[in-house]
Amino acid sequence: MAKQSVLTPQADDFPRWYQDVLAKAELAENGPVRGTMVIRPYGYAIWERIQAEIDARIKRAGAKNAYFPLFIPESYLKREAEHVEGFSPELAVVTHAGGEQLAEPIVVRPTSETVIGEYMAKWIQSYRDLPLLLNQWANVVRWELRPRLFLRTSEFLWQEGHTAHADQADASAYARRIHLEVYNDFLESVLAMPTFLGIKSPGERFAGAVNTMTCEGMMGDGKALQMATSHELGQNFAKAFEIKYLGDDGTEHLCFTTSWGASSRLVGGLIMGHGDDDGLLVPPALAPVQTVILCIRDEPELTEVAHRLADELASKGIRAEVDARSGSFGRRITDWELKGVPTRIEVGPRDLAEGKVTLVRRDDRSKQTIGLGAVVDAAEASLAEVQASLYARALARRDEHTTAVSSRDEAIEAGQAGFARVPWREIGAEGEGDLKRHTLSVRCIQRADGSIPDNDDEDDLYCIVSRSY
Amino acid sequence: MAKQSVLTPQADDFPRWYQDVLAKAELAENGPVRGTMVIRPYGYAIWERIQAEIDARIKRAGAKNAYFPLFIPESYLKREAEHVEGFSPELAVVTHAGGEQLAEPIVVRPTSETVIGEYMAKWIQSYRDLPLLLNQWANVVRWELRPRLFLRTSEFLWQEGHTAHADQADASAYARRIHLEVYNDFLESVLAMPTFLGIKSPGERFAGAVNTMTCEGMMGDGKALQMATSHELGQNFAKAFEIKYLGDDGTEHLCFTTSWGASSRLVGGLIMGHGDDDGLLVPPALAPVQTVILCIRDEPELTEVAHRLADELASKGIRAEVDARSGSFGRRITDWELKGVPTRIEVGPRDLAEGKVTLVRRDDRSKQTIGLGAVVDAAEASLAEVQASLYARALARRDEHTTAVSSRDEAIEAGQAGFARVPWREIGAEGEGDLKRHTLSVRCIQRADGSIPDNDDEDDLYCIVSRSY
Repeated sequence: MAKQSVLTPQADDFPRWYQDVLAKAELAENGPVRGTMVIRPYGYAIWERIQAEIDARIKRAGAKNAYFPLFIPESYLKREAEHVEGFSPELAVVTHAGGEQLAEPIVVRPTSETVIGEYMAKWIQSYRDLPLLLNQWANVVRWELRPRLFLRTSEFLWQEGHTAHADQADASAYARRIHLEVYNDFLESVLAMPTFLGIKSPGERFAGAVNTMTCEGMMGDGKALQMATSHELGQNFAKAFEIKYLGDDGTEHLCFTTSWGASSRLVGGLIMGHGDDDGLLVPPALAPVQTVILCIRDEPELTEVAHRLADELASKGIRAEVDARSGSFGRRITDWELKGVPTRIEVGPRDLAEGKVTLVRRDDRSKQTIGLGAVVDAAEASLAEVQASLYARALARRDEHTTAVSSRDEAIEAGQAGFARVPWREIGAEGEGDLKRHTLSVRCIQRADGSIPDNDDEDDLYCIVSRSY
Repeated sequence: MAKQSVLTPQADDFPRWYQDVLAKAELAENGPVRGTMVIRPYGYAIWERIQAEIDARIKRAGAKNAYFPLFIPESYLKREAEHVEGFSPELAVVTHAGGEQLAEPIVVRPTSETVIGEYMAKWIQSYRDLPLLLNQWANVVRWELRPRLFLRTSEFLWQEGHTAHADQADASAYARRIHLEVYNDFLESVLAMPTFLGIKSPGERFAGAVNTMTCEGMMGDGKALQMATSHELGQNFAKAFEIKYLGDDGTEHLCFTTSWGASSRLVGGLIMGHGDDDGLLVPPALAPVQTVILCIRDEPELTEVAHRLADELASKGIRAEVDARSGSFGRRITDWELKGVPTRIEVGPRDLAEGKVTLVRRDDRSKQTIGLGAVVDAAEASLAEVQASLYARALARRDEHTTAVSSRDEAIEAGQAGFARVPWREIGAEGEGDLKRHTLSVRCIQRADGSIPDNDDEDDLYCIVSRSY
């Protein structure tokens, strides 16, 4: 069966392919105010699954959810010098409310370090109150002149964790724990996305941080996407907001704070990290619908079997949905492939006469005919295979497009088509400007074994150089 | 043991008691910008449970979650005349963003009928696209001059459902279904809160609605709290945003739309609806912690048993937490009572020597000594009893403070100390001004049997008159 492509092929125009997937899989579209985004039900269902998986990991790491206001007094932003400098160009400002001009302008939060710092200072009295481990799920606003849905929007959805600790070692260890046990574990085991872990170069750090850790994924076009970041803020915000505690030595100390976030940009990472010319490809561990049961026609004998199978699958914890619509079967297959549902079960009269259905994998299109009694086991096995295969495929692509080089010039060349891995001393702070002129940047700095260094002064460090979103 | 009260008694000063509970149970405090709120972890855990229960019911009713932007062009608000008139005094307006003055001011959403209407118009082509059933969880802003935490804040958290239907009957039936199967079911079976159901009088309707249904609960001081509302919007927004569909008759029709919401104000309703002089009282079906296991002292033999019990309870789906802190036992009991955890299990050395622990109910303080092997069954039974008892108590209080009267003057008198139920014809549109002068209002209009009328022109309608939040 020759297939008519409904999407621009990736090889022809990757950004256009991305826009096509957003529209055809009904994920999101532009909002009416520049740079804002409407997330449609299927896109939001994916985000809800991302939230649930990340939230469970955050709770296991001991942090508790809370909620801080959308509106922050402008004066708060100004208390930490680097922070305000970093965010000023992106702020949205409320000047009128309740029919009157406000005495002090209000900033719509671009992030919440400042307001949370103010309350941490109130809530922390003694060392017994530490560590204080908070997280919030919220919308934030950073005015965006070149918006791209899910990747860069003026308003986006995220979680931001904020913690206060008695000393630097505890703060550092917790930020690292979040980075590995929350973000990297989610990315590897749920999103099926291998990443390069490391720290940001001084020029790429979060505004106000002393160290920023990142997970960098490779997208289908070889560009990097920063999937999540975790910051050690040292005592910068503790000083600005007087976050202090009485130690067991009877004297007052400044806390060390951290912050860490992952956002709706992960949906963009999912699309560009796994999608193919037929649409999205959602890893089973993440998928809102893991198995769609498609009736070839809208006939009672077929739909009855479909619903019985859906109930059996659901009882084993598989997220299944029945599609017994009357439209063209081929068109419906195309729709579910666009949406990237990892497996489908086709229920047709001929198979059914023999007590069988057909199970099809989205990733490699492999089909198997299975007896009705074996559907649940086969579906479970198939989902596990798709999950493993998506990770393996992404890892193979990443490694294939990552080139070890030894000089800045080579990195500039290799970084155009994928990732260049080069000794950090070949780039350094002064080399970053050079990279920028070639639309490249240092995505992360890591040790020779791929682990996260404590700082960028260690010996024998490598960095990943590439184009990025 | 004589107890030192940590809260202002309700009878002395109810508003002060409410403030005390918010602070002492660590639920929420004021944000830095006037009228905003910081929701602390325990308050937010309650809100997360409210969200989970309401969200599951919304999904069962077939609506799907989506997300629309925080920022709405000012011009959108103006398209529906009553809507803009209703919300104008409460709007927060962004005039500067990205370092520049904006060409058109942007409104921070006070509710999303307008922006969602714009997208419904795009997404609906034919009758096959109907009904379109959407919901979003979001923050909204309505500038508040007399803020009160959880009850009236300039920013609050809520869900807002928005649906489009082919005809008035379908829209009306769906709004009613949401009102009963989502809101009232949640209020009765989870929040243990009996309500009076009915419609709002024309003067109290949502701005732009043709009919508003409400659930009105009675708080501990006899005042009413509107717990949730569901609106039939007729064709008002369909006209303003051209939400049309091609019918199976081949001609174009305007849709009928609905909207419906419940907010973080429900946390305020929980506090004031069930709380007593010792603090909050959270119904077990809602409670983030259903059973706290308190070790009398921080000793290994006790904590080991406590954790084993917690695991047993968790395996039966009971949300249990161990408190093995070393602080004063009495003080810790007071803290858990302030937080309203419905049952506690005390693990002490004397009981334990006999293989027993003590189970205490928060609502009536009844204690029972139970064998270690019977804890799970006893805890389950106790939680069911507390749930039933809280509902019964709230119902008895509501009925005791609801007076059937037959004239407006009697309603004005009875409404000061509770609810007055009076024939609607005795009040009418012209009587509402009279009530307002006595700080009273019509909370809802209902049929003689307590059911929801189709409109306020039916014969034999009654209304609830009272003070309110």
